[in-house]
Amino acid sequence: MNNFYFQLPTEVYFGKGQITNLPGAIKQYSDNVLLVYGGGSIKRTGLYDTIKNLCAEKEIEVFELSGVEPNPRIDTVRKGAQLCKQHNIGAVLAVGGGSAIDCAKVVAAAAKYDNDAWDLVLNPSLIKEALPIFTVITIAATGSEMDRGAVISNDETNDKLAMFSALFYPKVSILDPEYTYSVPKNQTAAGVADIMSHAFEKYFTRVRGAYLQDRIAEAILKTCIHYGPIAYHEPENYEARANLMWAASQAIDGVTWRGNDVQSTAHPIEHQLSAYYDITHGVGLAILTPVWMEYILNEETVHKFVDYGVNVWHISPEKDPFDIAKEAIAKTKAFFASLDIPSTLREVGIDEEHLEIMAKKGSKNLENAFYPLEEKDVLQLLKNAL
Amino acid sequence: MNNFYFQLPTEVYFGKGQITNLPGAIKQYSDNVLLVYGGGSIKRTGLYDTIKNLCAEKEIEVFELSGVEPNPRIDTVRKGAQLCKQHNIGAVLAVGGGSAIDCAKVVAAAAKYDNDAWDLVLNPSLIKEALPIFTVITIAATGSEMDRGAVISNDETNDKLAMFSALFYPKVSILDPEYTYSVPKNQTAAGVADIMSHAFEKYFTRVRGAYLQDRIAEAILKTCIHYGPIAYHEPENYEARANLMWAASQAIDGVTWRGNDVQSTAHPIEHQLSAYYDITHGVGLAILTPVWMEYILNEETVHKFVDYGVNVWHISPEKDPFDIAKEAIAKTKAFFASLDIPSTLREVGIDEEHLEIMAKKGSKNLENAFYPLEEKDVLQLLKNAL
Repeated sequence: MNNFYFQLPTEVYFGKGQITNLPGAIKQYSDNVLLVYGGGSIKRTGLYDTIKNLCAEKEIEVFELSGVEPNPRIDTVRKGAQLCKQHNIGAVLAVGGGSAIDCAKVVAAAAKYDNDAWDLVLNPSLIKEALPIFTVITIAATGSEMDRGAVISNDETNDKLAMFSALFYPKVSILDPEYTYSVPKNQTAAGVADIMSHAFEKYFTRVRGAYLQDRIAEAILKTCIHYGPIAYHEPENYEARANLMWAASQAIDGVTWRGNDVQSTAHPIEHQLSAYYDITHGVGLAILTPVWMEYILNEETVHKFVDYGVNVWHISPEKDPFDIAKEAIAKTKAFFASLDIPSTLREVGIDEEHLEIMAKKGSKNLENAFYPLEEKDVLQLLKNAL
Repeated sequence: MNNFYFQLPTEVYFGKGQITNLPGAIKQYSDNVLLVYGGGSIKRTGLYDTIKNLCAEKEIEVFELSGVEPNPRIDTVRKGAQLCKQHNIGAVLAVGGGSAIDCAKVVAAAAKYDNDAWDLVLNPSLIKEALPIFTVITIAATGSEMDRGAVISNDETNDKLAMFSALFYPKVSILDPEYTYSVPKNQTAAGVADIMSHAFEKYFTRVRGAYLQDRIAEAILKTCIHYGPIAYHEPENYEARANLMWAASQAIDGVTWRGNDVQSTAHPIEHQLSAYYDITHGVGLAILTPVWMEYILNEETVHKFVDYGVNVWHISPEKDPFDIAKEAIAKTKAFFASLDIPSTLREVGIDEEHLEIMAKKGSKNLENAFYPLEEKDVLQLLKNAL
């Protein structure tokens, strides 16, 4: 196990009706707030009105940044930061999924930064302060509600970059599983793939002896495998929605990866796919993950696939290690297929056109991955995924 | 899954040499500190000198409260609070195991309280402020370094009471597995039993559908079963000590029990044993746990024992549920025996004398346990454990 620093300052109110705790939490920091959200879904479900009313009761003035894109753009961040500066806004509230939250995080930092927000994405060490961040999540997926990361895209440069700051931990996150009842089936499935990918990224690590972290990652994977299909077929199954929602947070908040950290592989490659094609992040991950697993399976890595196959898929440990590994990968692929997630890049409209540039950008730092990959490996992997 | 509130404000520095982060952390709050510890072990290992030197370098004045008992006494708390008031001490640093930490927590609160410290134990809602708490742990067991609980004994009344306050979360805890190399074998074993008991107490719950939390509890149990014997036989095995140390924190910090909470059973009963006989807490738990499991095994509870047997002990799910349950309990008992922990109360000097009063005190609130127990049940359970 590696040395590590652990912090998890976000307070969580989890469960039905917990939204009532939100305005009091905001009010401790500010009398006004920037509400950051995507499209009209929170208006359709009534969550928008609920929040506006609760804030009004507590005399919190609400400004709005709407229209945050599924892969949030730096231009939207700039707009939000401008609003904060102009109206002297003292807090940021994201309502939605990872996109709204990631956008809100960078808005919170950019509001306290004198120059262009993209500077902060390129160099997060420039972030010296940020407005307090609050979140209400409406989809179980990124876990951004309980971590210090954000991913922002730049249309002009086709960049989609992950960034981290301790100031990005939300102060308070409201996790009400009922808010995810209305998530469309395909987005529910993509969210499950995203959660699983977070667990995989730190499970497949070169760190030896982070046994507890690995067993917790398996707990999260088992939860996704158990409840993913239930939530997919019964959108209003509270138990399934609750377990997936909490799994999303736990997959990212450090309990699986502190002491066990490694450069992610599928995520940075997928970021190129969604930067160039604006596809759903979780779908890209579900396509890439089994292909990546197949690509890196070898004598050096097989032991980890055996753990995965035996502990998560209950494959008999008596079998040949490579048979276990291949069966585990096949089961992973079949699982995503059972949720009707596309399994090839062509199905989501990606062809050969940008493979080279995506491989080039997506292979940065992968020499530190579980199994080191070079640009040519990533290119081959993308071809295998076509 | 139940609604819950989650917070985990303690910052952790985990690993070799992390002690160097301690003085800077204290200095953010105070120029002096009360060092709270038990006997001479931290002097023998050199940890005492290391901390004194590091504090001196940072110009932090160190006052001392030594001689904290294995089951810390309210009189010692009073002494510590008195020192804090007298010298205007601004922070409390526990170095040791759960005893030192629990004592330090209540000292921190009592230092800010005008009346007698025992009031706070009886009614923790009286705790309105507390000095900032820091910990350096030297045994993997209670997890007190990352939670909001403390257990304090009162000699005059033979009371040993658990208490909780959000102000009891340490600000910073230093978890260096090397500090546990010198823990004696019997204490290593008792620590493992304590960790496992924390996992059991919330695993055996009436809450349905807290699937993720249950799988994480199993991860902790598997970690203890895997590494307990290694640490017992190879005290300087870093990997084993590290996994047990982190498991101790994770077993108590909320990831297993938020959303899944239930009144503990073995713990409150054991507190009576150690209140009357001053035995090692983890030993009491290891004796009581299998007896408790046997006592409550029935049609209503068997499903949970099946989960435990299949997922933790890899017993075939094809077997009869009661056979799985009995095998799981037998394996639990055999595991503790393999660590040379006594398996009966008589072995630790407990006979019939105080059984009635211990059953009376230990059965409080057990109507809310996984399987509700009355005074007569606890008495029978204690008799079964003789």
